Amino acid sequence: MLSAVALAQAIRAGHLTPLDVAERCIEAIRAQEADVQAFAAFDPDALLVGARAPDLAQRPLAGLPVGIKDILDTTDFPTERGSPIYAGYRPATDAAIVRMTARAGGVIAGKTVTTEFAFMTPSRTKNPRRLTHSPGGSSSGSAAAVAAGMLPIALGTQTGGSVIRPASFCGVTGYKPSFKLLPVLGLKVFSWSLDTIGLFGAHVADVAFAAAAISGRKLVPDDDMQAPRFAVARTARADQASPDAHRALDEAIRAAGKAGASVTVIDLPAEVEAADLACADVQAFEAALAFADEWDRHRGELSEKLRTYLADAARVTPEAYDEARRASRRGRHALADVMAGFDAILTFSAPGEAPEGFANTGSPIFNRLWTLSGAPCINVTGLTGLTGLPIGIQLIGRFGRDREALSAARFLERAINAA
Amino acid sequence: MLSAVALAQAIRAGHLTPLDVAERCIEAIRAQEADVQAFAAFDPDALLVGARAPDLAQRPLAGLPVGIKDILDTTDFPTERGSPIYAGYRPATDAAIVRMTARAGGVIAGKTVTTEFAFMTPSRTKNPRRLTHSPGGSSSGSAAAVAAGMLPIALGTQTGGSVIRPASFCGVTGYKPSFKLLPVLGLKVFSWSLDTIGLFGAHVADVAFAAAAISGRKLVPDDDMQAPRFAVARTARADQASPDAHRALDEAIRAAGKAGASVTVIDLPAEVEAADLACADVQAFEAALAFADEWDRHRGELSEKLRTYLADAARVTPEAYDEARRASRRGRHALADVMAGFDAILTFSAPGEAPEGFANTGSPIFNRLWTLSGAPCINVTGLTGLTGLPIGIQLIGRFGRDREALSAARFLERAINAA
Repeated sequence: MLSAVALAQAIRAGHLTPLDVAERCIEAIRAQEADVQAFAAFDPDALLVGARAPDLAQRPLAGLPVGIKDILDTTDFPTERGSPIYAGYRPATDAAIVRMTARAGGVIAGKTVTTEFAFMTPSRTKNPRRLTHSPGGSSSGSAAAVAAGMLPIALGTQTGGSVIRPASFCGVTGYKPSFKLLPVLGLKVFSWSLDTIGLFGAHVADVAFAAAAISGRKLVPDDDMQAPRFAVARTARADQASPDAHRALDEAIRAAGKAGASVTVIDLPAEVEAADLACADVQAFEAALAFADEWDRHRGELSEKLRTYLADAARVTPEAYDEARRASRRGRHALADVMAGFDAILTFSAPGEAPEGFANTGSPIFNRLWTLSGAPCINVTGLTGLTGLPIGIQLIGRFGRDREALSAARFLERAINAA
Repeated sequence: MLSAVALAQAIRAGHLTPLDVAERCIEAIRAQEADVQAFAAFDPDALLVGARAPDLAQRPLAGLPVGIKDILDTTDFPTERGSPIYAGYRPATDAAIVRMTARAGGVIAGKTVTTEFAFMTPSRTKNPRRLTHSPGGSSSGSAAAVAAGMLPIALGTQTGGSVIRPASFCGVTGYKPSFKLLPVLGLKVFSWSLDTIGLFGAHVADVAFAAAAISGRKLVPDDDMQAPRFAVARTARADQASPDAHRALDEAIRAAGKAGASVTVIDLPAEVEAADLACADVQAFEAALAFADEWDRHRGELSEKLRTYLADAARVTPEAYDEARRASRRGRHALADVMAGFDAILTFSAPGEAPEGFANTGSPIFNRLWTLSGAPCINVTGLTGLTGLPIGIQLIGRFGRDREALSAARFLERAINAA
């Protein structure tokens, strides 16, 4: 994989130019894209032109190429959202995060494949770790492009588990920041209470570097932090994690303890577990409105899976939605109380290794509660499952304390690598 | 003015058809539009076709024509957002609220004039109460169209004071619902923490009827409610309200008391007043990102006022923004404590009558705090100022208790009319 931090350092030191990096990416894409199919739109000539822009090396992203999930608006590339409804669509403006990336000196390298409207219908993308397996969804192309070493950084989005799950399956670092840390304008909305922009990179330092560069916030991990206090929360859905997912989490716990972290196994309060159930009604009610136009005018062009989902979603009443929002709020408050005693929670990123075949993109069962909570989540790499595919560990930080969460994730990553 | 409730009742009773109402609106528009200039786009033939659709009479909005502020996306009309950058622009989808309006049996009557991107640069619209005066902004066309009797209902948006202020100046009822009660998808974002969709109608019952019909929520006022407990909060900015605005508020207080309401004059807690100051940084930081594309690519087509604003806005740091958000949160919590003892707060809708001339759209100084609070706000009509132009009273309800707020507003409206 390509380390964004290492490449940016080499560029700043004059050992590489942005053009060199772009050429390296193009080479990797040429070698692997036919198998992996991570890109919805890619133009090597445009990337080379972009990488030749003056003064890139001194800007925060140092001229690194960045992949943009095709659920985010771009004026320079088609924005098809994984749906035939938007074939060839060109929005009037870039998504805010795309402008922020360009302003920070990132070169927009192309659009990465999203599942249809970032929902559950699988895309054509393959898992670069094993091409017979799913890369996960919905940020399939972004996770796969980073895993295959085609790009150092790619942007994705998460409404249920669409950053952390594909990151776990593909063995890359995924970072879902605190809700609202990155603006979602120009993201095709699925659920406005849940949709969150995230980043994929090789390691924790790489996603932190890119998020800091794009947002102008202090997010680079503090390597001098005290050993973190971890809580382990296997959740009420622990029985749906595979034995090797449990084993990976146990390994992570042991490694963290050995590296000096305190580790406490906890049960989540009932209010937090109840918020997990509330996700469904929040997402459904909002999706039924977010896709009102597509439903009214283009229903026949929606996948069967999404059509069925939206038909059910339209039956969620405003009263049920309001009750779900209240349950979410209670859950967030209860979680804040839990987190007062810890730096981060450790849990499963996904139920296990990437599923074989392409019938589905895997389950967001270990993600949706944390998306709803708004807390920063990081998929930490380094462990593998029964068949040798990656199994990530999910680290959840305190809301709004993203730098601390990234610092704790970096600690865990090092601990796993050292074990 | 046209009462939405009365028209819908007449349609349901078979005394009128949706087509009759459409024709009445077209007649009023033909008579007055040259003077008032409330419309950015209007197509009488399309309105007549729409009003002939089958089964409209039995649907929640009974086939009433609805004006849509031109900051909201429509596929059937250009969406120019008050800016030459978007001249002739046709979005790919309707805004969610436009689909909801159509689904509820409303007929989209056209686009009403917005100031440039719903900011402060005046539009061409005149105040129908006196054509030499500003209608206020930014929902200038929506307020004016209702005030002139051209439409029974129009949608607007408020980021600072863009619903309540023009409603006050034009002598119509404006209702800014609780934050997130109406979905903002397809609204050109200025500030995602503040942008709120609102409604204009003749009286409280009319906006409540339309909001209930569009949202499917129980919002129609309860006329059997107990006499409300009002708090009067003139705010720390009371000295910026004109003598006749003070007199109007005093009249409202007397009328409410005479009708049996309890009225208590309060000072707002320091945390609430501090939130007023926080509005500026929240709005600016978000606007700088919301207009990143227009700034990067179309700066020369922005008005001088907006360009200057955005240049300053870009200097608000993430740290200042986060601090402003924390101040907002503290203010909301403190306001909830205040409101625990009252059904609603009464205060100024605007500093006074509509300003003469068109140099500016008036001040949102009595609105922005309440927008930030997320609480439902209603401009209650019936009083006038020194020169005979309308002066509205702003009623602020408890967050999420919109029906109670509308019921209290209806009580106040009746009390003012009876006095």
